[in-house]
Amino acid sequence: MAITMSTFSEYKIEKVKVLLLLMMMMLGTISSAQNPQARKKPNIVLILADDMGYGDASVYGHPTINTPNIDQLAHEGQRWTNFYVAASVCTPSRAALLTGRLPIRNGMCSDKRRVFWSSSVRGLPADEITIAESLKDVGYATACIGKWHLGHKDTKYLPTGNGFDYYYGIPYSNDMNKTQKMTKVLYQNPKTSYYNVPLMEGEEIIERPFEQHTATKRFTQQAIKFIEENKRSPFFLFLSHSMPHVPLFASQSFEGKSERGLYGDVIEEIDWSLGQVMQALKAEGLEENTLVIFTSDNGPWKMLDQHGGSAGQFRGSKGETWEGSMRVPAIFRWKGKLKNGIIRDMAATLDVFPTICKITGASFPDDREMDGYDLTPTLFEKNESGRKEMFFYVGRQLFAVRKGNFKLHFKTRGIAGFRKYYNMEHTPPLLFHLGEDPSEQYNVADKYPEKVKELRQLAENHISGIKPYEDQIAPRDGDEIDRY
Amino acid sequence: MAITMSTFSEYKIEKVKVLLLLMMMMLGTISSAQNPQARKKPNIVLILADDMGYGDASVYGHPTINTPNIDQLAHEGQRWTNFYVAASVCTPSRAALLTGRLPIRNGMCSDKRRVFWSSSVRGLPADEITIAESLKDVGYATACIGKWHLGHKDTKYLPTGNGFDYYYGIPYSNDMNKTQKMTKVLYQNPKTSYYNVPLMEGEEIIERPFEQHTATKRFTQQAIKFIEENKRSPFFLFLSHSMPHVPLFASQSFEGKSERGLYGDVIEEIDWSLGQVMQALKAEGLEENTLVIFTSDNGPWKMLDQHGGSAGQFRGSKGETWEGSMRVPAIFRWKGKLKNGIIRDMAATLDVFPTICKITGASFPDDREMDGYDLTPTLFEKNESGRKEMFFYVGRQLFAVRKGNFKLHFKTRGIAGFRKYYNMEHTPPLLFHLGEDPSEQYNVADKYPEKVKELRQLAENHISGIKPYEDQIAPRDGDEIDRY
Repeated sequence: MAITMSTFSEYKIEKVKVLLLLMMMMLGTISSAQNPQARKKPNIVLILADDMGYGDASVYGHPTINTPNIDQLAHEGQRWTNFYVAASVCTPSRAALLTGRLPIRNGMCSDKRRVFWSSSVRGLPADEITIAESLKDVGYATACIGKWHLGHKDTKYLPTGNGFDYYYGIPYSNDMNKTQKMTKVLYQNPKTSYYNVPLMEGEEIIERPFEQHTATKRFTQQAIKFIEENKRSPFFLFLSHSMPHVPLFASQSFEGKSERGLYGDVIEEIDWSLGQVMQALKAEGLEENTLVIFTSDNGPWKMLDQHGGSAGQFRGSKGETWEGSMRVPAIFRWKGKLKNGIIRDMAATLDVFPTICKITGASFPDDREMDGYDLTPTLFEKNESGRKEMFFYVGRQLFAVRKGNFKLHFKTRGIAGFRKYYNMEHTPPLLFHLGEDPSEQYNVADKYPEKVKELRQLAENHISGIKPYEDQIAPRDGDEIDRY
Repeated sequence: MAITMSTFSEYKIEKVKVLLLLMMMMLGTISSAQNPQARKKPNIVLILADDMGYGDASVYGHPTINTPNIDQLAHEGQRWTNFYVAASVCTPSRAALLTGRLPIRNGMCSDKRRVFWSSSVRGLPADEITIAESLKDVGYATACIGKWHLGHKDTKYLPTGNGFDYYYGIPYSNDMNKTQKMTKVLYQNPKTSYYNVPLMEGEEIIERPFEQHTATKRFTQQAIKFIEENKRSPFFLFLSHSMPHVPLFASQSFEGKSERGLYGDVIEEIDWSLGQVMQALKAEGLEENTLVIFTSDNGPWKMLDQHGGSAGQFRGSKGETWEGSMRVPAIFRWKGKLKNGIIRDMAATLDVFPTICKITGASFPDDREMDGYDLTPTLFEKNESGRKEMFFYVGRQLFAVRKGNFKLHFKTRGIAGFRKYYNMEHTPPLLFHLGEDPSEQYNVADKYPEKVKELRQLAENHISGIKPYEDQIAPRDGDEIDRY
């Protein structure tokens, strides 16, 4: 039906109103036909950096690394300053992110090894439910692009066995399956050939050793391809960078670009990658229907000196339980939907699963203990976060607890040498006020004995409420030890 | 002349155009009559915090201090990440800011005392030219509100003797003229009565001891009054906070407000103050004709534990020559005039004087050695900063030099105890790459012997080119020693 000015003039005022309404409805229909996303569930893009520290982006205070895209994401969204991972090493941290459960509940932690090695035979237990599985059930296209590290010796442990339609990436850390005994110097002068890491697509190895210089570039290309191919269905993209985990590699166009040296080059390439993803979302008209989350799996690996990142003014390094070990950059961005700004509430990667369920209508596992909180009240309304407590584990041992601004350390860890840590037990435990003393320098246990008592009780209740799951990571029959 | 619709309808199309043009011109005249600033020289608002560290604002990465106004200023302007003071203690740093000259050139440094004491009899030499004097010569109204610390025993040393029409503030640090022997505990449990500090207006003492709880509040009120009273003439406002120098005081509405404790309260009140000043500029229609500069006089005084601030990921504290001692937050904001963003070029408070001269047409002293660079090419066009080198003094001794990203330390300092430092001489000197290693952790002298040579030569040339001016700060006849 064509509406011309002459027909228009014949209507009376009341009829004009009706017509205008009709026109608006028609325009709405046209616009939603042009925009395939208008009525579908929101897309989720979850970007995870590997070993990127709290202080490694400009917007988190780094003085010499340029991260214009991360900064822009923060400016257009919520930048969280109290955001934790559930463990300060890869395997348990990633398991917690994807299942919303503490690693002690699903066996993804061990006192014998911190993470899966290339020789490891087990993986994430089959009865665990991942974000991808939950989203697949409500019609999402799902992809894991980049590093996995939740098991690989059986296809059931791979991303494709855990709810991801598509997988393109490496099954474990980029410094595993070494071809020779590695020294600190070799780590700091990286060659792809030192590591016999496979690149997989689906369940097939397509390149070995993985040419790591182009890791970030190729993961980004695959991510964009996935976005373009799935723009008409709701999708979940888990872009899990293998960088800036050592050995560091940047592509040719980034090598030597940053003032911060190779580590800065690598972060700036991850920042570029984020920019590419955001551009693809914009180009496809998906910005207003996509929640983007950018975070890291644990703090920086300072043991490798300048090949490790910065935790800003926080104490500690990857592998420990200081703030710098487990507090990570975290930005949420959803154009037009979030209340933007700096968020000082507490949250954790454990909260990503329940939050995504709330947003997408995916079902949240209710037959097991979950450890996360739905963050949407804070994301949408800046209401208080449900998370008031955090538990800091090393392997299967609880090292510290936080409640409000107080953190009680029963044990702490430090770097004893190249790839060596020492543990220290604190009797009585150390108490820090993280608001007044974010760098954990001043033990205030004597000043707040009631807090020590309260947090000790919290730890005891937590431990007695946990039913530990059999350690999946410790070496076992059939697990040939990695040579180096 | 009144233009009504009936007269309007008599004009033909061509005449309508002429009329519209006339109306636009009239509106333009009215608007510039309403806006007294439209044709006058730009105002300068220079805000200086005392001992605020590089990492103390949210926008510079602080995790628990809220500084929405500083963040906003950064977002609306240029946030510099390589901005230095010329000395890491008050008197020489402030002298350098106001004269554009290294303290060694005008005697505002000493190896006997680092700063003027309340007993000191001298001040900034009379032949020194301050920014205020230069601006007064071209018709500016000038005010110094807050801390001075460039001499006070003779009126010629006061702000009113150095180019400021108006002075309201304290003549030296807020912890001077002690009424008893101060311990660290007393510093950390501050009382106004511990310090017999005078509050002055012009050349008169109007309150003693200065009630410090309302320091930031009252300085802010005076600053706004000055803006309102001088909105019709170009003005230079030097708002020189006495906080967050210890002893820390916040007004009632800020005490207990910040998660970071009293130090955070104090910073958040300074942030509030900035917000009030910006609001006053906006209310008076001066935003587009006012350059606002926010910076600090030196790094945080970590010796006082949580009563000292944070240098972010930089090493060092007030009084030393590490990056954390001398690199400070620095934001430039001029609505509609600057190319906004993060600026990684090098600059220093020494560059403020030449920059202001360039902007205002004030005369730049050409009869003496100046140490600054005009920053307008970077401010207006993001062109490269002229500053490629920086010199790091303790008293009259050159401790370190920087050129490009390399910094060579001949001597370093550290904290030896409460109010005690130790010096350490380095033979051979230590070389750091500040881009790759902003925290000055890894000596790379062996890797870059040619840089060591180049920077050593730079230091030698610098020293041989300096004609040191007689030390004005060392105690002398008539200088009764402060009792405590």
